[in-house]
Amino acid sequence: MNGVGEAISFRVEQRSSVCGARTGVVETRHGSFATPAFMPVGTKGSIKGIFPKQIREGGAECVLNNTYHLLLRPGSELIQRRGGVHRFMNWDGPILTDSGGYQAYSMADINAIDEDGVTFKSILTGEKIRLTPEVSMRVQNQLGPDIMMAFDDCPPSVDPEAGPTNQTRIRLAAERDTGKSKAYSHEERLDLALERTTRWLDRCKRAHANPDTQALFGIVQGGTDLDRRTRSVREVCDIELPGYAIGGVAVGESGDDISRVVRHTAPLMPEDKPRYLMGVGYPRDMVAAVCAGVDMFDCVLPTRNGRNANAFVRSMEESGGRGQIRLRNAKFAEDDRPLEADCDCQACDPTRHGWPSLDGSPFTRAYIRHLFQADEMLGPLLVSLHNLRFYQRLMIDVRAAVANDDWLGLARRWPGAAAGVPTELMALGAE
Amino acid sequence: MNGVGEAISFRVEQRSSVCGARTGVVETRHGSFATPAFMPVGTKGSIKGIFPKQIREGGAECVLNNTYHLLLRPGSELIQRRGGVHRFMNWDGPILTDSGGYQAYSMADINAIDEDGVTFKSILTGEKIRLTPEVSMRVQNQLGPDIMMAFDDCPPSVDPEAGPTNQTRIRLAAERDTGKSKAYSHEERLDLALERTTRWLDRCKRAHANPDTQALFGIVQGGTDLDRRTRSVREVCDIELPGYAIGGVAVGESGDDISRVVRHTAPLMPEDKPRYLMGVGYPRDMVAAVCAGVDMFDCVLPTRNGRNANAFVRSMEESGGRGQIRLRNAKFAEDDRPLEADCDCQACDPTRHGWPSLDGSPFTRAYIRHLFQADEMLGPLLVSLHNLRFYQRLMIDVRAAVANDDWLGLARRWPGAAAGVPTELMALGAE
Repeated sequence: MNGVGEAISFRVEQRSSVCGARTGVVETRHGSFATPAFMPVGTKGSIKGIFPKQIREGGAECVLNNTYHLLLRPGSELIQRRGGVHRFMNWDGPILTDSGGYQAYSMADINAIDEDGVTFKSILTGEKIRLTPEVSMRVQNQLGPDIMMAFDDCPPSVDPEAGPTNQTRIRLAAERDTGKSKAYSHEERLDLALERTTRWLDRCKRAHANPDTQALFGIVQGGTDLDRRTRSVREVCDIELPGYAIGGVAVGESGDDISRVVRHTAPLMPEDKPRYLMGVGYPRDMVAAVCAGVDMFDCVLPTRNGRNANAFVRSMEESGGRGQIRLRNAKFAEDDRPLEADCDCQACDPTRHGWPSLDGSPFTRAYIRHLFQADEMLGPLLVSLHNLRFYQRLMIDVRAAVANDDWLGLARRWPGAAAGVPTELMALGAE
Repeated sequence: MNGVGEAISFRVEQRSSVCGARTGVVETRHGSFATPAFMPVGTKGSIKGIFPKQIREGGAECVLNNTYHLLLRPGSELIQRRGGVHRFMNWDGPILTDSGGYQAYSMADINAIDEDGVTFKSILTGEKIRLTPEVSMRVQNQLGPDIMMAFDDCPPSVDPEAGPTNQTRIRLAAERDTGKSKAYSHEERLDLALERTTRWLDRCKRAHANPDTQALFGIVQGGTDLDRRTRSVREVCDIELPGYAIGGVAVGESGDDISRVVRHTAPLMPEDKPRYLMGVGYPRDMVAAVCAGVDMFDCVLPTRNGRNANAFVRSMEESGGRGQIRLRNAKFAEDDRPLEADCDCQACDPTRHGWPSLDGSPFTRAYIRHLFQADEMLGPLLVSLHNLRFYQRLMIDVRAAVANDDWLGLARRWPGAAAGVPTELMALGAE
């Protein structure tokens, strides 16, 4: 087997004539999804509180699950015996899983990173768990997603000593690396991670048992240093695979840094393969990435912020420039408007979805605020539904902007994302 | 105004020829509901975690809200300004509210019960709140349900000293009653409650501002003493109203006591008005009550137990005689069956509801167990949906049993409810 397989296919449908943006379709054995795509995150095999039917009604076509969480509980072998993760969670569309590496680094006490893999303690049982490229592939083969991610070495992108990040433990772990008690400088560690990521990708590709049903994506590393990114793209994309991702961003850098790295890196990646920017989810950052040629995104923002009573809205005026309104705010106590005017989600326009409603009334801000104040589950659920749809509406408009090269129009309709449109494109609005 | 109004109408459709059971329809200004009816409880203006559309898909036609909770937060005046509780919670079907009295007694530190009303401390703010028949009517008029309940005096039905109930505080409050520092015996307190309930009902009827749009139901009291029940029925039903309820049951007595009181009381209540048994929700007790002529029920059991991972199932074998299975049990970890075979709910038969599913798979016990173990909201939601539908399926079969007088068949299909079918009816099964 050549390790590429035919698990998915990707075709570009439209290209912007003024930037790297494109629209396309990824076809998998569980249906297709349009790109640029936003994938909601179903960490433990469920998008918190949201039924598969509601995910689909919101417009999402592909969802992400976290290998780390499913490995710890209920275990990938148990899910395999259930017929795989699609059947387990009752989602019949495309699913992507990450490798488990990022959570192993960021959530667990790491015992050791070495050339072979990572040893960490389960946050549930305290038992030691060993993740290697081979183990990650076996686990993802057992879970059975349509797209699986390579197991990579993802150190902090900024020097941990430069700021109070929560990643000191990664640094410490790095210092314990190699069994030779050698402490690396930040720069040395970045070089090691870059090279190791390539070596691990090679092992992933060889260990991957189901290339004809599951597509393995490689991950480009290299931190915020553009030369390292160039080098990593070259090494990673030299290994033939059905898709590639940009990793090691959204791990603490500024939006400007994200954008700088993505604008540099994405155009270097193969034209004919989907490009996935891992974990990036602020509308502005996604739009900037689309203009650089990125096709896929995931982020917990719509659901996490939904649970915390933060509803995304387009209007910067109304949100005080934040792009979100906080439903717990007392000013909403008697506000009979929907979360957002003109939104077509189940919360803002329930009759459109065949839900009972008096005279087409929305779920009002007043009601949703009450639900949060009263600690009623329906509050987090309604705002999560709204936010998930907000992201899909943005993606629909992004795809239309590509087709018409109407970037000014996109920036006007989505003021919170406007900063992501490169300045030179803002002049090119449709007349 | 005569206080009866035409807010609702009730017609009996079929009567059992062998017991007091009947089917019927209650028509309200927000649509009708078939009886015998089970009303799910939306305590604070939402049925915990369940969307109005899902409530309707589960077959419930009328829902209950708690006046006490809505009065404390967000306040009945705020809800009135929102256009009433239907619009507030986006439920366009019939709504019933209780009077607030029961929660004031059972959840709050009571400062005093006297002939005029009850003073209690808000569990939210600690402020003193005064509930009287007039206040309860004003609050329910502001909330705007289709059916509102009289404000009654509901003492513990069994002597608090006879058992370790949590109602000692009610007893203590009773002893502080009258401002004369007089301590009542349990018997004296019951007599007082009975007479006071009648006096308060009279005040309720006079204070009720909207008899043409909201139906006021009187409540029969009298504890477990059948003579007192007879007396209370006579006094309460002498006040003409569109419906009547049996109160003061399901407050700590045994199932046998509930059944004995209901079998005695229901037949004494007017034939042509709906009869509502408040708070009773075990299938067996509901079936016994139906056979005595009761038309309406409410209970938190399906949703509360759903949140606690207890799924109702008909099979007594499978549930070890409990009528429920505990999804947290390790034996379900690899159980690929639905919560209940042949159930048509969204959890057990998602494709029937147009939900995504692989080959029509249900949400399995294995998945639902995982969701509870992982503290994922979807677990409580799926089991709540199942339990709500379980109750409606029971009601559908109960209505069919009335039409065919097939009580043996009902008992066979619903073994957990079989004990509710009077012995003499068990011989009358359809051949």
